[in-house]
Amino acid sequence: MSSADFATDVTKRPQQEVAMPLIASNIKFTQATNPRKVPQVDSNEIWAQNVSSDHMLTCQWTTERGWDTPEIKPVADLNISPLASCLHYATQCFEGMKVYRGFDGKIRLFRPELNAKRLAMSAKCVSLPQFDADELVKLIMALVQIESPKWLQKPGSFLYIRPALIGNDAQLGVRVPKKATLFILLMCWPDFSKSNLRLLTSRGDATRAWPGGFGYAKVGANYGPSFVLHDEAVQAGYDQVLWLFGPEGQVTEAGASNFFAVIRSRETGRHQLLTAPLDEKIILDGVTRRSVIELVKANLANELEVVESSFTMSDLQVAWEEGRFLEAFVSGTAWQQFDITTKTSICRRTMIQ
Amino acid sequence: MSSADFATDVTKRPQQEVAMPLIASNIKFTQATNPRKVPQVDSNEIWAQNVSSDHMLTCQWTTERGWDTPEIKPVADLNISPLASCLHYATQCFEGMKVYRGFDGKIRLFRPELNAKRLAMSAKCVSLPQFDADELVKLIMALVQIESPKWLQKPGSFLYIRPALIGNDAQLGVRVPKKATLFILLMCWPDFSKSNLRLLTSRGDATRAWPGGFGYAKVGANYGPSFVLHDEAVQAGYDQVLWLFGPEGQVTEAGASNFFAVIRSRETGRHQLLTAPLDEKIILDGVTRRSVIELVKANLANELEVVESSFTMSDLQVAWEEGRFLEAFVSGTAWQQFDITTKTSICRRTMIQ
Repeated sequence: MSSADFATDVTKRPQQEVAMPLIASNIKFTQATNPRKVPQVDSNEIWAQNVSSDHMLTCQWTTERGWDTPEIKPVADLNISPLASCLHYATQCFEGMKVYRGFDGKIRLFRPELNAKRLAMSAKCVSLPQFDADELVKLIMALVQIESPKWLQKPGSFLYIRPALIGNDAQLGVRVPKKATLFILLMCWPDFSKSNLRLLTSRGDATRAWPGGFGYAKVGANYGPSFVLHDEAVQAGYDQVLWLFGPEGQVTEAGASNFFAVIRSRETGRHQLLTAPLDEKIILDGVTRRSVIELVKANLANELEVVESSFTMSDLQVAWEEGRFLEAFVSGTAWQQFDITTKTSICRRTMIQ
Repeated sequence: MSSADFATDVTKRPQQEVAMPLIASNIKFTQATNPRKVPQVDSNEIWAQNVSSDHMLTCQWTTERGWDTPEIKPVADLNISPLASCLHYATQCFEGMKVYRGFDGKIRLFRPELNAKRLAMSAKCVSLPQFDADELVKLIMALVQIESPKWLQKPGSFLYIRPALIGNDAQLGVRVPKKATLFILLMCWPDFSKSNLRLLTSRGDATRAWPGGFGYAKVGANYGPSFVLHDEAVQAGYDQVLWLFGPEGQVTEAGASNFFAVIRSRETGRHQLLTAPLDEKIILDGVTRRSVIELVKANLANELEVVESSFTMSDLQVAWEEGRFLEAFVSGTAWQQFDITTKTSICRRTMIQ
């Protein structure tokens, strides 16, 4: 590059820098005037998964101006143009995480920086704007700070945090959105850990994700098209679909959670923790999945060997028939409860058909 | 089944029949009080793809009540719960079709029943409600009737019709929506047929759709995740991505249009019209694609053999090197203009890289 080229580059910069980054300061706040009632633990309202706290955080973005000032305001419907990209072209991504009131009374998030980074990665996957993950965590904390006195009163209670990013350009061209909205909700959430979870393997003609696709990202596009099979499984008395891939029935994930099996190796006799690998980019890099793996490697390396590698339903069946199949479980924020004070994961046994 | 069983079935029926089907009658109408200005042909506003006509049609659906009374009203933002399924889980699908003012002054839709049936098929794919395709066509015609005197004045003019169906249950559970909204927009649309179209083949590490997936349906999930590559292509001076599939680079479709190549067969010396087959369910069953095939079979059977079969970029390259590659074109409602009076398709030549 010649010095003349460089000079040109420099003169171009100011224009590009007009677009503001996401900054978690000067947050506008509008107090809710019709505060909602906190539902009882385990009530129908909780199980309906439709009760949010009183306030939500929103932040607008445009190509020209970048990120606007974040705003915390009463939860209300969004005004969305019927032409908006998010309604037609699934320019949308989200995260799922929890905030807990510990038995020591303290409020804690669990590795929120990992969720924030994953949202940025998912946003990239669907051409939505980038942001500094640390700033997103600060925004989440700001909302939690406002809501926790009322909505997280009891030790051991938790809320589900749903940050989401949607493209809402009011134009129908098949192109990258020039406008987007970030919003964060705090939701009352059921405690799924009290019941066993039953998985039904996907039909041979259905595939959730594909190498070169977007199964690794938390984008809306991975969910809607999977509801048909999910519903079939629910109608048949199961909780989730265990998605298989390819003609050999490679075990991938359960759609809303990662899947693990513990078997005894035929070759070495050692206990192995099997889970699908990330390198094919067809499963989600789950925060809980990662934590489970790290905890096992750090504390149980001698008893349990972590094997992140492709395995099939036939592999599991053979292990079962040979008495080497010890247990299986799923991990995921929405489907699992943490004991915050000790940070150990309590995972539920899973029935495999 | 015993007669007692049958009796039980009959008594159950009334409950199920409470849910109303979609019916295109008694449409509520609210006149727009702030009519919009019809933009000039080929103006910036037209190219921005953000100008709709004055009115839109909406119809609400719930599991319990079925389809509500349709409503034609001024185009306005939709009030959508931040918890709505369509914003998080891509429970959304759409159609694209056109309405034309012919040179004989008459208003015509082009095979709208095919689009209506495809929307019902796409809706099934993302667990959205079913409807009678004929009723949807009637709803479209009702909206067209109101808008055409103002928005389709000139012979040869056209509007782009965008019916869309979104799940808008206000709950965050990963499950089939119990509420949905159908809406129909009429859009001013650019005439893309005046410029040549340049396609850039997809990168080897990117896959638009896969067997067992949902590439055959017009669901939002097929679009957002493809914008990154689309934008790369546009930045590099191309118009669309030509999506290849698998290690051999099987030619599928161009994302917003179907792809055709005309070659001379090495074996028979005959001219062949090549296009990707529907049986793998990775390409859209395009209405224009279907029409092109039907027209060729009906009128050009002796000159041009239709071959709906997998072919690769290498096949095309070899044909090119051997002087057997004659032409290529794409078909699609948004990207192509019909001469209504003769119903022959005028398709643009396409450069292949």
